[in-house]
Amino acid sequence: MARIVMKFGGTSMAGIERIRSVAARVKREVDAGNQVAVVVSAMAGETDRLVGFCREASALYDPAEYDVVVSAGEQITSGLLAIALQAAGVPARSWLGWQLPIATSDAHARARIGEIDMIALDASLNAGEVAVIPGFQGVTATGRVTTLGRGGSDTSAVAVAAAMKAERCDIYTDVDGVYTTDPRIVPRARKLARVTYEEMLELASVGAKVLQTRSVGLAMKEQVRVQVLSSFTGEDAPMADTLPGTMIVGEEEITDVERQLITGIAHDKNEAKITLVAVPDRPGAVGSIFAPLADAGINVDMIVQNVAHSVGSTDVTFTVPMADLPRSLDVLNGAEIGFEKLVHDTRVAKISVVGVGMRSHAGVAATMFTTLGERGINIQAITTSEIKVSVLIEEDYTELAVRVLHTAYGLDADSPAE
Amino acid sequence: MARIVMKFGGTSMAGIERIRSVAARVKREVDAGNQVAVVVSAMAGETDRLVGFCREASALYDPAEYDVVVSAGEQITSGLLAIALQAAGVPARSWLGWQLPIATSDAHARARIGEIDMIALDASLNAGEVAVIPGFQGVTATGRVTTLGRGGSDTSAVAVAAAMKAERCDIYTDVDGVYTTDPRIVPRARKLARVTYEEMLELASVGAKVLQTRSVGLAMKEQVRVQVLSSFTGEDAPMADTLPGTMIVGEEEITDVERQLITGIAHDKNEAKITLVAVPDRPGAVGSIFAPLADAGINVDMIVQNVAHSVGSTDVTFTVPMADLPRSLDVLNGAEIGFEKLVHDTRVAKISVVGVGMRSHAGVAATMFTTLGERGINIQAITTSEIKVSVLIEEDYTELAVRVLHTAYGLDADSPAE
Repeated sequence: MARIVMKFGGTSMAGIERIRSVAARVKREVDAGNQVAVVVSAMAGETDRLVGFCREASALYDPAEYDVVVSAGEQITSGLLAIALQAAGVPARSWLGWQLPIATSDAHARARIGEIDMIALDASLNAGEVAVIPGFQGVTATGRVTTLGRGGSDTSAVAVAAAMKAERCDIYTDVDGVYTTDPRIVPRARKLARVTYEEMLELASVGAKVLQTRSVGLAMKEQVRVQVLSSFTGEDAPMADTLPGTMIVGEEEITDVERQLITGIAHDKNEAKITLVAVPDRPGAVGSIFAPLADAGINVDMIVQNVAHSVGSTDVTFTVPMADLPRSLDVLNGAEIGFEKLVHDTRVAKISVVGVGMRSHAGVAATMFTTLGERGINIQAITTSEIKVSVLIEEDYTELAVRVLHTAYGLDADSPAE
Repeated sequence: MARIVMKFGGTSMAGIERIRSVAARVKREVDAGNQVAVVVSAMAGETDRLVGFCREASALYDPAEYDVVVSAGEQITSGLLAIALQAAGVPARSWLGWQLPIATSDAHARARIGEIDMIALDASLNAGEVAVIPGFQGVTATGRVTTLGRGGSDTSAVAVAAAMKAERCDIYTDVDGVYTTDPRIVPRARKLARVTYEEMLELASVGAKVLQTRSVGLAMKEQVRVQVLSSFTGEDAPMADTLPGTMIVGEEEITDVERQLITGIAHDKNEAKITLVAVPDRPGAVGSIFAPLADAGINVDMIVQNVAHSVGSTDVTFTVPMADLPRSLDVLNGAEIGFEKLVHDTRVAKISVVGVGMRSHAGVAATMFTTLGERGINIQAITTSEIKVSVLIEEDYTELAVRVLHTAYGLDADSPAE
């Protein structure tokens, strides 16, 4: 008998018919002899509706009261799934965040999960009940409701799986797994059977939005095996433990046969490029640029210090999240830096090749630059990590770049996806 | 400084604009120096939506999970009103049923309030915060969410007022008070400045649906002064303590000048009449009729044993709630009674005259019978209590009966209501 966590998103919870399908899926796992906890999102659209109410009530709403309001969405689906499970003959009950409890920090609207009390949950699971747990919510030490921030239900599921020492945390979503790249761009993209936590973190943070980044980080820390799989396969779909989706695991679980040089290629159009022209070329100049941005809580990503174009000055280029661009410009114009001109460009894209295999192989970056160069794609900035190489290019070349790199690293499947 | 409870129904909570109006009203009471707890209903229509989900998920839904689902409606409005109050500059926070806690029995979907813990609430009120409390919900000793049954928010408000030792419990509703009878039937109906708990119980239970009956009973037991007043008067309306609505109080508060023989006239079309023809006229026969109905939880109201129409047998007529009619017929047909024929009639109405004044005055019933008789209205059954006389008549005569009785007991106002 294994313990597993199943997590269903808002699309799977949108209406009673779909909740009944979820119940049927949970029942199959119970019938197979598993102890199951189910973590649920609110009905699709419900959280937006509730957030909208809060914003309408006050632009400067109290995040503690916001949490009271928006956590209701998952409370509703938890009760409904418990009812649907019981109707399907499966003993079940809901456990709200404050009932287990799921202890969190008191950073309302973006709380972090601390301890999950297992006393009641263990007893319930051992008694043969399915535990239905609302995602996204918890409770502070002083007994106030918290939420984890948008997309937090993935994190709830992983945290519950860690506390339960679950064999697997199955994340049912509207894609059927993690692909080598976006299949809408490359029809020959392949679904990955396994991907490491670190690769998934890089793929998630650069735009392959299958899982919330924080949930992947937590899974890595707690060594929870996470499986991404589709919630829309039929009743006769294979059981989840026969791996129809993508399993996210530790690097040690990847066999030599499976190991590829490059696991996937991601793209991200949500960065903006800023260039400071003719910054004085003296010690401390770079610090005077980035310190005020850091103070404003703006994450700078790629940084290039260009060769000096005239004696005593240099150009500095970097990227920031698109949403932070206006604030970045404000901060830079208000700081004592001494540049000649400030230009920015939102028509850029970041293309990343990711893979743990590159730790032991040289030449990954060179292949990337050569491949892009052959197609006349200009590289505006570069950044690398141990398992990732990213380049900034003109946005219009995004799809072309992804396609040629996918082919260059031998990732194309034999036939296009259906 | 006084403590007051303000309760707002679903219509007052239907949308952020209205919630803002409620906040403005609460602010006036706070500015006047009062300590205020506000009890709120869910947005109009929301509870129906959530109940609909539960029914769709399973006709035989688990009431404990139903409570998890439907209590979310009041949770949402509590948080939103707290946000709106803060935006209006009034310190406020929400207190969910489990947070205070409001302890209830474990009879899910129809729980009864036990103790309300005042420790946190006292501290919050004394610190100058408005406490926003979702109506209709509580928590069991084992920490499960409960609801009180439809309309339970009135009861929550009265229970909170009792626990707070509030000077008043103001129930804001979509009528502006309690009238001598339904103003849609009698335009000259008068709004009552005061009415006793007992009169209100009789008026509520016979169809003047301003307050939930249970809340009036609780107010009487706990001696909570309840005021019914309109939520739709403008910003410049008189303050609640200048009594624009109807105050429900103990009999000792009614002055001699105010005291009327009859306080009001109610009508109720939700009863059905059943007649068993030719029941054997022997000891135990009546018991064999009503015992099985009581066992089935059916409340029998008016009972008439007709004069025997042939030797050794008698007719028995009584009323049951309309909703229980099919079940009542089943029970009676299945019981060992021995009647000749069972007939029923749903086209009946119960007309009641209510007033504590009749305790000390004879002739109330006689006036009723004479007045109805003069108009040719036949009385099918009669029941009386210390402060009420009710008759059953043909439904088509309802409005006529109410009008002539309103005039006969001197209740008509000098001019019609606006």
